Amino acid sequence: MQNYKLKIEYDGTEFSGWQKQKNLRTVQEEIEKVLYMLYKEKISLKGSGRTDAKVHALSQVANYIAEDKFKEEELLNALNANMPQDIVILSVEKVDNEFDSLRSTKVKHYRYVINNSKFGSALNKDREYHYKYSLDIEAMNMAANDLLGEHDFKGFMSVGSPVKTTVKTIYDIKITKLGERIVIDVYGSGFLYNMVRIIAGTLVEIGSGKLDICTIKNMILTKDRTLGGKTLPPHGLYLVEVIY
Amino acid sequence: MQNYKLKIEYDGTEFSGWQKQKNLRTVQEEIEKVLYMLYKEKISLKGSGRTDAKVHALSQVANYIAEDKFKEEELLNALNANMPQDIVILSVEKVDNEFDSLRSTKVKHYRYVINNSKFGSALNKDREYHYKYSLDIEAMNMAANDLLGEHDFKGFMSVGSPVKTTVKTIYDIKITKLGERIVIDVYGSGFLYNMVRIIAGTLVEIGSGKLDICTIKNMILTKDRTLGGKTLPPHGLYLVEVIY
Repeated sequence: MQNYKLKIEYDGTEFSGWQKQKNLRTVQEEIEKVLYMLYKEKISLKGSGRTDAKVHALSQVANYIAEDKFKEEELLNALNANMPQDIVILSVEKVDNEFDSLRSTKVKHYRYVINNSKFGSALNKDREYHYKYSLDIEAMNMAANDLLGEHDFKGFMSVGSPVKTTVKTIYDIKITKLGERIVIDVYGSGFLYNMVRIIAGTLVEIGSGKLDICTIKNMILTKDRTLGGKTLPPHGLYLVEVIY
Repeated sequence: MQNYKLKIEYDGTEFSGWQKQKNLRTVQEEIEKVLYMLYKEKISLKGSGRTDAKVHALSQVANYIAEDKFKEEELLNALNANMPQDIVILSVEKVDNEFDSLRSTKVKHYRYVINNSKFGSALNKDREYHYKYSLDIEAMNMAANDLLGEHDFKGFMSVGSPVKTTVKTIYDIKITKLGERIVIDVYGSGFLYNMVRIIAGTLVEIGSGKLDICTIKNMILTKDRTLGGKTLPPHGLYLVEVIY
C-alpha cells in the first residue's frame, strides 16, 4: 500500500465546503468519486482541515492510502482529466506512511481579501468581501500584532464548536494594501472554527474606528467572543498553503 | 432632457450577453430595469456594442436620455444600490446630446486571457481560456503585426453576420506573458462579430505551430475565414475600455 499526498486548488463558490455531507456537493466527495473510478474501490481522502462553503483554496493538502498501481504523473493526469472544472489537482506525491495531512501540519497560511472600493467589483463578487468605508491600515496592523505568539484563542471561535484545545500559535500576520484591495495574510499552527473570519472582522472594525485598538488584546485576555467584530463572510477567505 | 454616459463593469458568466433578448438574462435589460425603477418610465439604454454570453467587461460604455432629475453622484449610488452583484456602475457622467456610445467610439480595447499551464486554474475557470500546449510567443507577436493598420477583416468574422462594412483599423496588438498566463490586448476602431476570438484562436494555432506564420497575412488577402484558427470560447474575453 502507498500513501499519496495531493495539493488541491478549488473555487469554493459552488461547494458546501470541504467535508463530505449527505446530499451536498463537497470537495472531498468530488475527489473521492474520481479516486473510486481510478481504483475501483472506495478510497478515503483525508484533508489538512475543513474549509466552509464558499471558502477557496489555492493549495489545500490531502492524503490517501491505496494500492501502489499508478506513477505520480500518470495519476496527476488521470485525476485532472476526470475532475470537475472547479477543482484542480496541482501535484501528486508518494510519501512515507507516517505522513498525515491533518496531524503532520506545521503551519497553515490563510488569506482574507477585502475590496475596499466604493462599489466593489462585479468580476470578483465571489472572490472578495466588499467593505466600502475607509480603513486605517496602520491601526489594523498595530492591533494585529497582539495576535502573535501562543495564546488561548477561545475568544476567536464560533460559539459551540467542540475542540480538544483552543491554544494555537500565530507566527505572522500581515495586512497589505494593494490598490483598492486589503489583503490579510495569517500564518498559524492551526486555526479554530471561523477564527480567520473573526480576526478579519475584528480588524475591519478596528480599522473603521468602531472598535478600540486594544480589542484583540482584550479578547485574548478575557476569551470573550462578544468583544470582537463580526464573522466576515466565507467568500473572501483562501487557504493559501499548508506547510509540513 | 439630459444625456447620461455610464461606465459599466460586469461578470459575463451568468448573462446571455449585453443585448436584450426575450426570456434571457442580459446586462442591458438588468440595467434598464433599474432605470425604470428610478425614473418610473421606460428608458432605452444604448451600449458601445454587444458582448456575447460569458464575455466580461472591465468598462463597457452606454448612454441614455432621460429627464434631468438626478445629480451624477446621487444617480451612481442609486444605480449601484439596486444593481445585481455581477454588474457595477463605475461612473455616471452628464454629457452633450451629441454623445452616442456606439457612433462616437474612437478606439475599443479588448483583451483575451489564456491560461497556459498544464491543468488550468480552478478559481479562474470562467475568467480565462485554458490551453495546455506550449506556445511560441515570439511567433505570435510577429504574426500579430500583420493585423496592424486599416484592412478588410472579412476573413476574421463569423460567417453570416450582416454588417455595413468589414473594413476596420487595428491600432495596436500586444501579446504578453505574465507567469503562466498569456494576455492578448487589441486596440481597434471597431471589431466584427467574433473578430477578437478568431484573432486569438488563429494566434494560438500559430503559436503552437499548427498554422503558418503567414496565416494572418493570407486571411487578410484572401478574406477566407477557413484559413484561420478556431474561434476561442467567450469566457476568456474582456471588453477593457472604450475611448471617445
